Amino acid sequence: MIIVMHADAGRSDLDRVVARVEELGLRPHVIVGTERTVVAVVGDERGAVSSGLETLPGVASVLPILAPYKVASREVQSEPTVIRAGSLQVGGPAIGVIAGPCSVESLEQIVGTARAVKAAGATALRGGAFKPRTSPYSFQGMKEKGLELLAAARAETGLAVVTEVVAPEDVTLVARYADVLQVGARNMQNYRLLEAVGRTQVPVLLKRGPAATVEELLLAAEYILDAGNRRVMLCERGIRTFETHTRFTLPLATVPWLHARTHLPVVVDPSHGTGHANLVESMAAASVAAGADGLIVEVHPDPKTASSDGGQTLDFAAFGRMMEVCRRVAAAVDRTIG
Amino acid sequence: MIIVMHADAGRSDLDRVVARVEELGLRPHVIVGTERTVVAVVGDERGAVSSGLETLPGVASVLPILAPYKVASREVQSEPTVIRAGSLQVGGPAIGVIAGPCSVESLEQIVGTARAVKAAGATALRGGAFKPRTSPYSFQGMKEKGLELLAAARAETGLAVVTEVVAPEDVTLVARYADVLQVGARNMQNYRLLEAVGRTQVPVLLKRGPAATVEELLLAAEYILDAGNRRVMLCERGIRTFETHTRFTLPLATVPWLHARTHLPVVVDPSHGTGHANLVESMAAASVAAGADGLIVEVHPDPKTASSDGGQTLDFAAFGRMMEVCRRVAAAVDRTIG
Amino acid sequence: MIIVMHADAGRSDLDRVVARVEELGLRPHVIVGTERTVVAVVGDERGAVSSGLETLPGVASVLPILAPYKVASREVQSEPTVIRAGSLQVGGPAIGVIAGPCSVESLEQIVGTARAVKAAGATALRGGAFKPRTSPYSFQGMKEKGLELLAAARAETGLAVVTEVVAPEDVTLVARYADVLQVGARNMQNYRLLEAVGRTQVPVLLKRGPAATVEELLLAAEYILDAGNRRVMLCERGIRTFETHTRFTLPLATVPWLHARTHLPVVVDPSHGTGHANLVESMAAASVAAGADGLIVEVHPDPKTASSDGGQTLDFAAFGRMMEVCRRVAAAVDRTIG
Amino acid sequence: MIIVMHADAGRSDLDRVVARVEELGLRPHVIVGTERTVVAVVGDERGAVSSGLETLPGVASVLPILAPYKVASREVQSEPTVIRAGSLQVGGPAIGVIAGPCSVESLEQIVGTARAVKAAGATALRGGAFKPRTSPYSFQGMKEKGLELLAAARAETGLAVVTEVVAPEDVTLVARYADVLQVGARNMQNYRLLEAVGRTQVPVLLKRGPAATVEELLLAAEYILDAGNRRVMLCERGIRTFETHTRFTLPLATVPWLHARTHLPVVVDPSHGTGHANLVESMAAASVAAGADGLIVEVHPDPKTASSDGGQTLDFAAFGRMMEVCRRVAAAVDRTIG
Repeated sequence: MIIVMHADAGRSDLDRVVARVEELGLRPHVIVGTERTVVAVVGDERGAVSSGLETLPGVASVLPILAPYKVASREVQSEPTVIRAGSLQVGGPAIGVIAGPCSVESLEQIVGTARAVKAAGATALRGGAFKPRTSPYSFQGMKEKGLELLAAARAETGLAVVTEVVAPEDVTLVARYADVLQVGARNMQNYRLLEAVGRTQVPVLLKRGPAATVEELLLAAEYILDAGNRRVMLCERGIRTFETHTRFTLPLATVPWLHARTHLPVVVDPSHGTGHANLVESMAAASVAAGADGLIVEVHPDPKTASSDGGQTLDFAAFGRMMEVCRRVAAAVDRTIG
Repeated sequence: MIIVMHADAGRSDLDRVVARVEELGLRPHVIVGTERTVVAVVGDERGAVSSGLETLPGVASVLPILAPYKVASREVQSEPTVIRAGSLQVGGPAIGVIAGPCSVESLEQIVGTARAVKAAGATALRGGAFKPRTSPYSFQGMKEKGLELLAAARAETGLAVVTEVVAPEDVTLVARYADVLQVGARNMQNYRLLEAVGRTQVPVLLKRGPAATVEELLLAAEYILDAGNRRVMLCERGIRTFETHTRFTLPLATVPWLHARTHLPVVVDPSHGTGHANLVESMAAASVAAGADGLIVEVHPDPKTASSDGGQTLDFAAFGRMMEVCRRVAAAVDRTIG
Repeated sequence: MIIVMHADAGRSDLDRVVARVEELGLRPHVIVGTERTVVAVVGDERGAVSSGLETLPGVASVLPILAPYKVASREVQSEPTVIRAGSLQVGGPAIGVIAGPCSVESLEQIVGTARAVKAAGATALRGGAFKPRTSPYSFQGMKEKGLELLAAARAETGLAVVTEVVAPEDVTLVARYADVLQVGARNMQNYRLLEAVGRTQVPVLLKRGPAATVEELLLAAEYILDAGNRRVMLCERGIRTFETHTRFTLPLATVPWLHARTHLPVVVDPSHGTGHANLVESMAAASVAAGADGLIVEVHPDPKTASSDGGQTLDFAAFGRMMEVCRRVAAAVDRTIG
Repeated sequence: MIIVMHADAGRSDLDRVVARVEELGLRPHVIVGTERTVVAVVGDERGAVSSGLETLPGVASVLPILAPYKVASREVQSEPTVIRAGSLQVGGPAIGVIAGPCSVESLEQIVGTARAVKAAGATALRGGAFKPRTSPYSFQGMKEKGLELLAAARAETGLAVVTEVVAPEDVTLVARYADVLQVGARNMQNYRLLEAVGRTQVPVLLKRGPAATVEELLLAAEYILDAGNRRVMLCERGIRTFETHTRFTLPLATVPWLHARTHLPVVVDPSHGTGHANLVESMAAASVAAGADGLIVEVHPDPKTASSDGGQTLDFAAFGRMMEVCRRVAAAVDRTIG
């Protein structure tokens, strides 16, 4: 790390900083500049992140140098991680496509959707059984019954099941039915939950929180990796900005940025990322062009009657068109899809 | 709610919307405008929020009218809620001041801090025993041992204890020691946790998530209220914006906005809200002037050695100065403090 | 527009609102709901936007219904506007590619770049002669000398010239050399400048301001259209958000959203939109997949010696690779490029 | 500045960086760390900001150390700048209060408002004659006629006049009538305008752009200072964030942050900063408590008929109440007001 001193910092301020750096087991390197003095700190600084150096008298700022994540980084593993979960593969040349309703509502709905999305090329089925909802008065999901219906749809179609788990105490139950455990955006920093899914060997789809930086997303993944589960997919699903014409702002530059820094595969959610069904196809195609390793898309037999997220959900025909465009774009960037 | 049709929507589109509104148990009211047709919907629309109306053909947008929260609203209870928890009172003319370290580190540290902040006028002690941390490699708190030390500091000084609970399974344990359960910003939408603290009768300090709207904050409070616990304090602690010179951006207009809509008291955290010790005093004074019912401030005997958040933590002398200024500003707005 | 009354608004409040609406030449339509009363207002509300209705006693909120822009809207012109400016065409099936350095630096630099980008498929040359710079101490451009060099490069290669104009008094001068007048992001709401370029018949590339909503972008375009110049290209170049790993956040959903609402073509700038050369190729490809009608990209013979924006600038080889990928993606979405 | 090399950068990468730094007239200082090598650069780096160092092979990032502004900084002038413009004083112990309508509408309106705000303690009159408006269809101001009315109100009351100038070609005209030239938020980076007001000796009120960082605000001020005008007041008027319950988010920590870095006085605009009349009093009081040197507030005899910004405008009674509260809070922080 680099410690920048104030222009008017004195000799005693500098001595105090040097002493504190040495106390932390690191080596200080003082450079006297024309207008400022800086102290370059040599050694693994990650343990010193919250060490209060920035509060010492005379210190103007502290600039970290090392990325704060380790196991997730390309420096630790240079080859991309490929994750296989039943019919789903994410991280290799084939782009995985996870499609299905926001919420599981009935056997007919989930099996019908599974058949339709499989026919269009999806490689996994999504569907929420435990639903975290902003309002306590909204539909909260079918819970275990929903998991059973998902399993029935898998039995029928062979599609792997991706479903959300919202609390550590549910992990065992959900893992009995799911091929991939989804950790939702609201829970990206629910560390108990991250540790709980980290103690399984079930692949995890970790969604970025709407105010989380990409570094924080990688550190959240690091909790899962550090607990022993190396099968983590990162998911960009949009961030909160001043824009109101979309539900969230979908920053696709996240995809190549993450690929340069982590071996973990990156999935994009153009449904939540836009909030409007008529923007999903374009953004799915853009995600593929940007290098996404997977897509997760909301599809429902009849979006206008969906019990949640209807406005951003595709019907079967629209999903078919989306897949057709994505297949062509995937080929253009030497990938396959579906 | 108001359903706005597209300029080119046809008669059959309109009929379909009207039929769907009636299916939802609401009454449609069609108004044909010069350039657009709108359908005003009469009845309690809150159950219809996710009903997919916006996906019907011909619908341009759907505008909700009723606030989505109920129990928290001034329309349900016009008088302010006053919360008493041992030595702490929040919501009346006296402004509560919760002060103490980010993390409990030792008996000496926490008792020393409790004595010092009490002497300066604080009415409650804060201190983290269970610490949610961005990185798995950071200090995670003393856990139950930390709770015991907080209880010791209360025994010594009489100050009520405010401490964070991070998971539903810890609620019973933490409630055994705490006078106020803090739900942190990262957990504002951890609904299991909200329900769990809602099933106790222990006062709750609910922090706003850094990307949460004020409506979402009120809906999170609604989870606690709906579960049966009416003793909720809301806490503004800053939001994530493009600004980088402060850790978060502290939007104090939240205080009068919330006061106009909810009877729940509002506490401000100028420590996290700025991230820099030298900005805390000004923003604490500004919070009091804006009408805050309480302050929560990080104080440590020696911030530069604090195990977390050192950069935004006041030492005893700085806290004393802050209290002195806040006392004068409180008097100027007909409140008392300390 | 829809005027929503407070739950406790009285009869006299309602009467006052109705009277004020009628004064504005609009027709009020009162709907008494279960919990609220709303007044639907019929007539062209655009003149009443700032009429202070929201300040009347008893009014909770005022919701506009009509989009505030007119000439730019699809409702006024349903076919896409195709803009031709010398070698550049934007808005039809062929995607225009504007490439070149941030700043014009020398004859050799600009002619060399023009030749190289033309060989790779660019259809216009960009280059700044008048440079708006954040700091007064940064290089401010070669001014008229730079325009002459751009004209020389056009004479040499046949490429249309796109260059920025920063003040109304420069419009005549810049229009003498430029095929397209660029209005930069900082000047999106410099109305005198918009009016000045609106009085020419030279095509305009209007960049979105980093905090401007898409509605504000369309209203800025409306200034140009309203002044008589119908040849306006909109340019998405990224917005300011909490993200710091990219210079701006590039929200590609803007592209299909704008296409649904305006007949004006949409260009994307993946250079400013990311700020990092190694992210440009992916985001250029994503822009094409999202439906962009044009790209504007920074290219320099030797980015590391560029007098501005070096970090986000491609060299010739990288631009060639970007064009190759974009050509394939364009074909996948039934477009051509270059 | 500090140049951080990639973990896998080679010896030749490092040599190239060192050579480039020397070319720029700066001294490189290589520090070989356990995991990374960094190059600390000694010398005034401000000229090298855009030198493309970050694009050299092997460079991971470039961290500036010096603040990019000079004349505005406390390091150049430690005592606060006090600005006097007729009846208005900003920067000393007395807090200046600039009040008046968004737009000048009539002699009666502006003189009536001037009298009322003066009686309540305002020390200057605001009023827009040239109005930059988002839509070309909105009222654009009375122009020179409006300036004459402002001068008449000054003649009547003795209040200094603060009014906006929107283009360089208007500076001479506006300066004939105004005591303070306001540069609006949309024009914060209109450099021609900054230079033009910088060539006068008329005090300038420079408003922060809604997406501008505080550093960019200081650099915009630097344009004015560098052109020869040292009488610049900075104005915080809110930034654009994801919040929609206020028009902008008013980040008051800007006030103490600026005070620590610049000698220029800081004015706050709680009208634009909130967008709602009922939030203005609280935020004005909070601004004073935060250390603001001035306030600028919209006041109109009858806000509901105002030709612009009615929703955020106070009537005379509300302004009187606001001043009363601010007077008491000012005394609490050892300032005077009015």
